[in-house]
Amino acid sequence: MNNSQDRGPIVGAVDPTVQPRYAGWTTFARLPRLQDVPHADVIVVGVPFDSAVTYRPGARFGPNAVRQGSRLIRGYNPELDIKPFEVCQFADAGDIACNPFDIGEAVGQIAGELTALLSTGARAVILGGDHSVALPSLRAAHSVHGPMALVHFDAHLDTWEGMYGADITHGTPFRRAFEEGLLRDNNIHVGVRGSIYDKENLTEDAGLGFSIITCSEISKIGSDGIIERIKDRVGDAPVYVSVDIDVLDPAHAPGTGTPEAGGMSSRELLEVVRGLDGVNVVGADVVEVSPAYDHAEITAVAAANVTWELLSVFGRKA
Amino acid sequence: MNNSQDRGPIVGAVDPTVQPRYAGWTTFARLPRLQDVPHADVIVVGVPFDSAVTYRPGARFGPNAVRQGSRLIRGYNPELDIKPFEVCQFADAGDIACNPFDIGEAVGQIAGELTALLSTGARAVILGGDHSVALPSLRAAHSVHGPMALVHFDAHLDTWEGMYGADITHGTPFRRAFEEGLLRDNNIHVGVRGSIYDKENLTEDAGLGFSIITCSEISKIGSDGIIERIKDRVGDAPVYVSVDIDVLDPAHAPGTGTPEAGGMSSRELLEVVRGLDGVNVVGADVVEVSPAYDHAEITAVAAANVTWELLSVFGRKA
Amino acid sequence: MNNSQDRGPIVGAVDPTVQPRYAGWTTFARLPRLQDVPHADVIVVGVPFDSAVTYRPGARFGPNAVRQGSRLIRGYNPELDIKPFEVCQFADAGDIACNPFDIGEAVGQIAGELTALLSTGARAVILGGDHSVALPSLRAAHSVHGPMALVHFDAHLDTWEGMYGADITHGTPFRRAFEEGLLRDNNIHVGVRGSIYDKENLTEDAGLGFSIITCSEISKIGSDGIIERIKDRVGDAPVYVSVDIDVLDPAHAPGTGTPEAGGMSSRELLEVVRGLDGVNVVGADVVEVSPAYDHAEITAVAAANVTWELLSVFGRKA
Amino acid sequence: MNNSQDRGPIVGAVDPTVQPRYAGWTTFARLPRLQDVPHADVIVVGVPFDSAVTYRPGARFGPNAVRQGSRLIRGYNPELDIKPFEVCQFADAGDIACNPFDIGEAVGQIAGELTALLSTGARAVILGGDHSVALPSLRAAHSVHGPMALVHFDAHLDTWEGMYGADITHGTPFRRAFEEGLLRDNNIHVGVRGSIYDKENLTEDAGLGFSIITCSEISKIGSDGIIERIKDRVGDAPVYVSVDIDVLDPAHAPGTGTPEAGGMSSRELLEVVRGLDGVNVVGADVVEVSPAYDHAEITAVAAANVTWELLSVFGRKA
Amino acid sequence: MNNSQDRGPIVGAVDPTVQPRYAGWTTFARLPRLQDVPHADVIVVGVPFDSAVTYRPGARFGPNAVRQGSRLIRGYNPELDIKPFEVCQFADAGDIACNPFDIGEAVGQIAGELTALLSTGARAVILGGDHSVALPSLRAAHSVHGPMALVHFDAHLDTWEGMYGADITHGTPFRRAFEEGLLRDNNIHVGVRGSIYDKENLTEDAGLGFSIITCSEISKIGSDGIIERIKDRVGDAPVYVSVDIDVLDPAHAPGTGTPEAGGMSSRELLEVVRGLDGVNVVGADVVEVSPAYDHAEITAVAAANVTWELLSVFGRKA
Amino acid sequence: MNNSQDRGPIVGAVDPTVQPRYAGWTTFARLPRLQDVPHADVIVVGVPFDSAVTYRPGARFGPNAVRQGSRLIRGYNPELDIKPFEVCQFADAGDIACNPFDIGEAVGQIAGELTALLSTGARAVILGGDHSVALPSLRAAHSVHGPMALVHFDAHLDTWEGMYGADITHGTPFRRAFEEGLLRDNNIHVGVRGSIYDKENLTEDAGLGFSIITCSEISKIGSDGIIERIKDRVGDAPVYVSVDIDVLDPAHAPGTGTPEAGGMSSRELLEVVRGLDGVNVVGADVVEVSPAYDHAEITAVAAANVTWELLSVFGRKA
Repeated sequence: MNNSQDRGPIVGAVDPTVQPRYAGWTTFARLPRLQDVPHADVIVVGVPFDSAVTYRPGARFGPNAVRQGSRLIRGYNPELDIKPFEVCQFADAGDIACNPFDIGEAVGQIAGELTALLSTGARAVILGGDHSVALPSLRAAHSVHGPMALVHFDAHLDTWEGMYGADITHGTPFRRAFEEGLLRDNNIHVGVRGSIYDKENLTEDAGLGFSIITCSEISKIGSDGIIERIKDRVGDAPVYVSVDIDVLDPAHAPGTGTPEAGGMSSRELLEVVRGLDGVNVVGADVVEVSPAYDHAEITAVAAANVTWELLSVFGRKA
Repeated sequence: MNNSQDRGPIVGAVDPTVQPRYAGWTTFARLPRLQDVPHADVIVVGVPFDSAVTYRPGARFGPNAVRQGSRLIRGYNPELDIKPFEVCQFADAGDIACNPFDIGEAVGQIAGELTALLSTGARAVILGGDHSVALPSLRAAHSVHGPMALVHFDAHLDTWEGMYGADITHGTPFRRAFEEGLLRDNNIHVGVRGSIYDKENLTEDAGLGFSIITCSEISKIGSDGIIERIKDRVGDAPVYVSVDIDVLDPAHAPGTGTPEAGGMSSRELLEVVRGLDGVNVVGADVVEVSPAYDHAEITAVAAANVTWELLSVFGRKA
Repeated sequence: MNNSQDRGPIVGAVDPTVQPRYAGWTTFARLPRLQDVPHADVIVVGVPFDSAVTYRPGARFGPNAVRQGSRLIRGYNPELDIKPFEVCQFADAGDIACNPFDIGEAVGQIAGELTALLSTGARAVILGGDHSVALPSLRAAHSVHGPMALVHFDAHLDTWEGMYGADITHGTPFRRAFEEGLLRDNNIHVGVRGSIYDKENLTEDAGLGFSIITCSEISKIGSDGIIERIKDRVGDAPVYVSVDIDVLDPAHAPGTGTPEAGGMSSRELLEVVRGLDGVNVVGADVVEVSPAYDHAEITAVAAANVTWELLSVFGRKA
Repeated sequence: MNNSQDRGPIVGAVDPTVQPRYAGWTTFARLPRLQDVPHADVIVVGVPFDSAVTYRPGARFGPNAVRQGSRLIRGYNPELDIKPFEVCQFADAGDIACNPFDIGEAVGQIAGELTALLSTGARAVILGGDHSVALPSLRAAHSVHGPMALVHFDAHLDTWEGMYGADITHGTPFRRAFEEGLLRDNNIHVGVRGSIYDKENLTEDAGLGFSIITCSEISKIGSDGIIERIKDRVGDAPVYVSVDIDVLDPAHAPGTGTPEAGGMSSRELLEVVRGLDGVNVVGADVVEVSPAYDHAEITAVAAANVTWELLSVFGRKA
Repeated sequence: MNNSQDRGPIVGAVDPTVQPRYAGWTTFARLPRLQDVPHADVIVVGVPFDSAVTYRPGARFGPNAVRQGSRLIRGYNPELDIKPFEVCQFADAGDIACNPFDIGEAVGQIAGELTALLSTGARAVILGGDHSVALPSLRAAHSVHGPMALVHFDAHLDTWEGMYGADITHGTPFRRAFEEGLLRDNNIHVGVRGSIYDKENLTEDAGLGFSIITCSEISKIGSDGIIERIKDRVGDAPVYVSVDIDVLDPAHAPGTGTPEAGGMSSRELLEVVRGLDGVNVVGADVVEVSPAYDHAEITAVAAANVTWELLSVFGRKA
Repeated sequence: MNNSQDRGPIVGAVDPTVQPRYAGWTTFARLPRLQDVPHADVIVVGVPFDSAVTYRPGARFGPNAVRQGSRLIRGYNPELDIKPFEVCQFADAGDIACNPFDIGEAVGQIAGELTALLSTGARAVILGGDHSVALPSLRAAHSVHGPMALVHFDAHLDTWEGMYGADITHGTPFRRAFEEGLLRDNNIHVGVRGSIYDKENLTEDAGLGFSIITCSEISKIGSDGIIERIKDRVGDAPVYVSVDIDVLDPAHAPGTGTPEAGGMSSRELLEVVRGLDGVNVVGADVVEVSPAYDHAEITAVAAANVTWELLSVFGRKA
């Protein structure tokens, strides 16, 4: 990304002393649209697809809700001591068009579009959409970075088998990804909790290269403990970070499709995501924001800030 | 249905002097489950399917919301002077299981289950679910009653062509139904309003056997005028009544997927549905209740009362 | 009331050019508290009692919600050409303390307090609370005015027999009132609709001196027709007006305990209540506002304006 | 506008068969941004300013809420038989930046920006913001069209004197506009209702060139009657249409700042606005949408459709 | 319970691969109704009674809300390594009918029904309803198990004296229970916080056999510390667990009647309830869920998961 | 305050055994109005002003929302072992009238009124309103107590420079206060988090006498650690405590204007505020409660309890 200067001055977010934060076009953190800059080093991309859910739908409205929830994001991240939007060119690439009626076709469309976007050298945070969009996102990231270790924040394992005849659902992306060779074998789930179908799910999950930090463990080891566990797990591997917003407790993220009581607080999640600084993060998604169930943008604001921390981590590596 | 007495005494709704209305199992109007009675003459059936929508999903939670909104329904309909639940056996048949990931398969499952239910001689009101469920419901009704005239309450025509490669969506059921020979050519839309894609839509719609009463006309002719227009249109034909709850103004039905300003009031809708007494109604559905967008059960209560009027009309013919 | 001048200058509502409408103590229409004026000719009184309901409780929070919803009420009623708060002394008497655990005791407390208030010569609008509070209000009004004709706005008859062993519930006030001799035999219900228990309810209701204007009739005769029917019915009798806010459609009054689809619009209700000008109204209540189910004060604002029209009618007779 | 063809082909709204309606950038009706087309004949402009309100603030979030509520608008208006977006170039000009802390400065900024936009020959619908934005909008329209007749939909007169030392508030725009010579003397209010400060307000209002259609009258004369009254009033004058969304009943528009019970239904309002076809409309605004009080986009969808009808009226004259 | 096999195969929850979780009858965790199985070892029972509250009512709608919030519960509890629904027969016994107008009568009805249910050898989790239902539940449990130690999760002590002449309210169950000899003297409150009436309340409470873990202490000792304190306190005694959902912070349980800021998180509560494994739990209740104040089922999902952990603890002892 | 006895017996809060907590006038904790007692030692004062916000407005409705949320506050604070309302006279002074259209004038009005109130010797907790009201509150407190150390709970620094030409906004009060000499140089922020404009903001902030405890540090040091840090910082200085409710996580305080994910829990905040016992607190405010974004009074109840702890701390020093 060191050549971004060659492309003219960086275009930053809208100046709040000119256009107040409640006003103006809705892009992530009020960044320029990708179409309005000659090139971007880091992009945010919406994937408004939710046809692979097994409970509450609605995450198709997630990307714009997260954009709206990001209006208060300012330019300097004091914990990571960086102004990412000044380091290189960030942009909002808008939403990927995909078919709500055919999971397979949609996944293909998403993978295609993302691969094209990443082929320019950009790194991306994908805004879902349901968790099935992680599969095409991993495919696209794999096309650039090869097999990755996954750091997966979620109440659920998402390594289940297909359901109702569908191989790809919001509960299966990482089983599919592992089978396709997109993932390494040093993956980790963070925030898992609640009932599952069978003890066997855990054995199978381990067979797909995952270790687990449950919410009960988080109570004991705290954010620093989680960060240490993650870093030990992924080492120097290229890492993909997938954040299902339901890793948060429903108090912190009511606007989601498969709520599980007993989750992380938004403070814990932000601390841990920020703690990924130093890890070789090559791609990321923030998914399962379902605005119809949100209140006062609690969920959208949390997701926007998770995205901001991910973008800051990207910026630190630029 | 005059032989329902042979099957033992009719089982009515739960007695509110014993079990208060806010308490007890959630069935439509607190009727018995179908599995708890030897036979039923009229049934309510849930079809929790919403994978064919083009805007807000969520109608998969509709059937139980309408059941919950029906708890205040008492046994006597004073406008139609009938206690339907004492005339013959009514029951709630529960929800039909169908695949959320494959529209075609789901439609097949729904048609199959409904056909089996209707083959016992029962008449049914289907609780959706999105409007695509009207197609399998019409198929099932057709298997018993042959081609029907459709009385269709909706903000939209729902005779559009398929979208994103899908023939069956919540915007296409009546085009498909006409093509399949399920409908006659004396159908009628009530409550149509708002923007459409093209003038041609209207011509095509007429070619599928529909006339239209727009909301603007409703302001002029009132409920009695609508009833007269409907009766003139359908005559003695067997009639299927399909009520998309978005025929109501969003004030009266916020909990729906494709809201259009400027709709009917719930009073107008109830008057007109009640006015179908005398028409040869052989089947019906009430669809597109999406509870995540509802408030204080406004939509669910309206839908429950529309269903109650339909059941009363059925009871009048028993 | 012509002697209110003898008691010093009238104290009006808080001046909005000094204290903005969103600010200051919460009294009805920002009127003075009864304790802050030497005397009042017309009072608003809260009765936060809801232990006699058969479905959703919560109307105990009604009086303060209606007060909050009344902050925008200004001093001049253009339709009735009156500034009621300048004609005589209006005040907010606060809430009556009553026992939530014993209906009989509560009704006694309410009747006692109200009788004391009315014995000063004041006329009152009672803010409920559930509809059971109409009984003690009628008892108090009867102590001053003798038997009254009732103009009753409600989705329901409220002349049912007791339930669960309780004679006094929110469904029985007017049966009890008639039996106690508080009512005359030229009463009228306005806005009745929906399912009831039995045809017999209607016969019994007529036997208690009621005629009925259903919502279906309202569609045909309009506000002027209703007003005429009411005036014909009550003639010169002293009239008590009881407004159950569920007479409004749930779209216009979601915040209530027993919602029935198909009701009056707030415009119709305000027109009719305003149309009572000229009738000999001696007492009134506005009940069944249940704020937990309200949204953006829709219900509270409607109830506050109904109260305002009643106060204006009182003012016109001062 | 007949020369818009010279500027290259018209760019229409995003194609829903490619990008579903819930996806993609948030512009009004998914129209192109003004910056993305070489020229526009009709524009929608947001004015996110609400610092001149006397009760509930929040309309600063109105423009984006209305844009979000406009996603279902399709291209053909069947009642007016027009596809406006194909007649000439429509675009969304985004939001005008203005100072939330200084009413005078903000009004100057708005007038300046709008005047510049209109000087290109475009006609505009302004999305507020509170009603004070009508004043700079009228100033800008006056710079092109000279004095106009005002058709004003509102629960309130908005011809009051200033408050708290401010000449320009959301209650004063039309007094100021008349004083500045922006308005003719054949103006009309539609939908006025509720309490006001003083009888004198009405006299003064008449002195500013206004006649009034109250909500009580609407119940009697209906949409056709209103349209006739408006057309009689404004004749051939250039007309500015100002729609305060609180002209709707709170049931139809909960998301607003100064709710008054007893308003118009969204059906009535749409009928009347559509009925302005044939009037010489030269400018318009839709204001006072306050999303924090909205539910399920009821208010935003109504406002979006009012805007759509205004755009269609503009298109009919192109 | 080892003889449940003699009664035929265990009937488990509805298979989600057949009927999706959003569909089908609403029973707790989609378990069979008690009436649909020949026998049950563990039951869930609703007690929709809320007439003994001193602030917000509405918990009468609690049982069905918790059932709806339990639809995502799967069969395996990984923390306790058990599939409870396969160990013995679980069932949902529906709601107990009781009088909303007479606390004493209702308490008698509840105690009678529960005693009958427990006399079959079943253990139960009661879903309230307000906290007064703990008294009849304790009476019923006492009839089988004799005096019990109470583990009480609540913001409040609930050992107050009666109010407004009522001995039994939602603030008194454990004073009454102790006086009746239902409780031992090694009881414990967990989660107490906020203002109380008097210092004396604490002395009296201790006299009723209670020790207290306040929320301030929870911050210091954590879930493990609480579990240890509880186990030390109750030892081998038969234990009744009573969970007032207001033990959670309002962020985690907005849907309750007497909210107190500063409570437990749902993660803490679930950890502690799960930690009761090994304690001799003989009965339990989860009360004070008031759905009208809930949002997106936050409270209902938390309560459902607390119930699930209690059922798992029961299953571990089967 | 030891002379308050000379002024007659202390008037406490309304007796809940007479008037239930949901009933009666809305004053903070049901305390008497200031005008109803001869003198007060500690007062609560509302400042309904929100015209200095840069994002969501609405805090003008804050004071009454906090009062409504304080109805459950009982008289004894067990953690601080005090019944504050019995130690000396507490009262609710109502709302200060101020100009919503002119920040400077409003700040002057607020400072004037508060100075007059404090000149009687009373100490006050101010209920905002947006955070700009802290400036006039500090001016008034300074008039009595001279320069103070500030303990500031907030997600944000609020020491920014002015914006849009306004020196006083909700982001600037403490820069202005320091410049005016109202503050000492041993101030402390607690709960700061999220993005800021520039690293320089931190340097400047330190230059205004502030140290910072970020939310990340809170996770490590806990409530006791924060209390120790605060006490070390402020020592024996007279202390003003300013609580912006957005110091809480949006889960705990959705009803606020500038939400930042990752905040304190209400339990942490209450522990820390309570821990100020022993500090020489001379004044305080609780601001930025914006009820339109609240749900089920989560935010209002939290703010009311923060106020209660502050009042208890005041009482401990009386």
